[in-house]
Amino acid sequence: MKFKFKPIGIIHSPFKTKEDIDNKKYADPRGFDSVQGELEIFKPYEAGLKDTEGFSHLIIIFAFHKSRGYKLEAKPFLDDTLRGIFSTRSPNRPNPLGMTVVKVVERKGNILKVSGVDMLEGTPILDIKPYNSRDQKSPIKLGWLED
Amino acid sequence: MKFKFKPIGIIHSPFKTKEDIDNKKYADPRGFDSVQGELEIFKPYEAGLKDTEGFSHLIIIFAFHKSRGYKLEAKPFLDDTLRGIFSTRSPNRPNPLGMTVVKVVERKGNILKVSGVDMLEGTPILDIKPYNSRDQKSPIKLGWLED
Repeated sequence: MKFKFKPIGIIHSPFKTKEDIDNKKYADPRGFDSVQGELEIFKPYEAGLKDTEGFSHLIIIFAFHKSRGYKLEAKPFLDDTLRGIFSTRSPNRPNPLGMTVVKVVERKGNILKVSGVDMLEGTPILDIKPYNSRDQKSPIKLGWLED
Repeated sequence: MKFKFKPIGIIHSPFKTKEDIDNKKYADPRGFDSVQGELEIFKPYEAGLKDTEGFSHLIIIFAFHKSRGYKLEAKPFLDDTLRGIFSTRSPNRPNPLGMTVVKVVERKGNILKVSGVDMLEGTPILDIKPYNSRDQKSPIKLGWLED
């Protein structure tokens, strides 16, 4: 059984290469909060964006299109211990799907200007969802990230 | 350009039909918080679950396998206004991908017992990610959901 998905748009980002993202500047996850970019949704899907601008935050599901293969245990960026891949946000995973919550700056037609971008320029967007109160979890425990 | 993904596991849920979920009992989104279920990860991927049990919450990305077609504007459950599909969590969307944050109860080998389940029995799991502080957004604005 396989599922096929096609991009509904692409991300425009200041990050042009993986090295731009794997930078110690962004080791503090809040480092990405101020990074702006644009979600360009392809014209045939534009009508689906109606009402998105009323939400402060959107969930972006995308394809890690530069991902090449994976290991079930891997060393995360700036860590030297092997971790189970499903306990990491690494792009190199069995299904190379990414998920980032971005903040809406404004929408102009098929373009959503957002902040909180940590994806590469040209990343294919698969889905956009409104972030709601069920996505806010607190308190949380961060496993190996707390070490 | 298309992306193909294959299930890494399936969800065991008390919800056997769509009607079990589209129930007024769950109109308050917190209604799902206490719903327990199991994520059965297929044996070849079990090693990737290492360290997941250290996190209080996990992000589950799954396929809405019962989704059949979509409209770019649709009326959400218990609403009578057409909304842009990307401002809803409807299963009927261009790429039928779902995302739910669940709470970890315990892990036994390839089985993760979790709460916060709002998926159907047999839903194919595509990815599991740790929920971290960047996924916590506050304050948030809920657009049409606030009406």
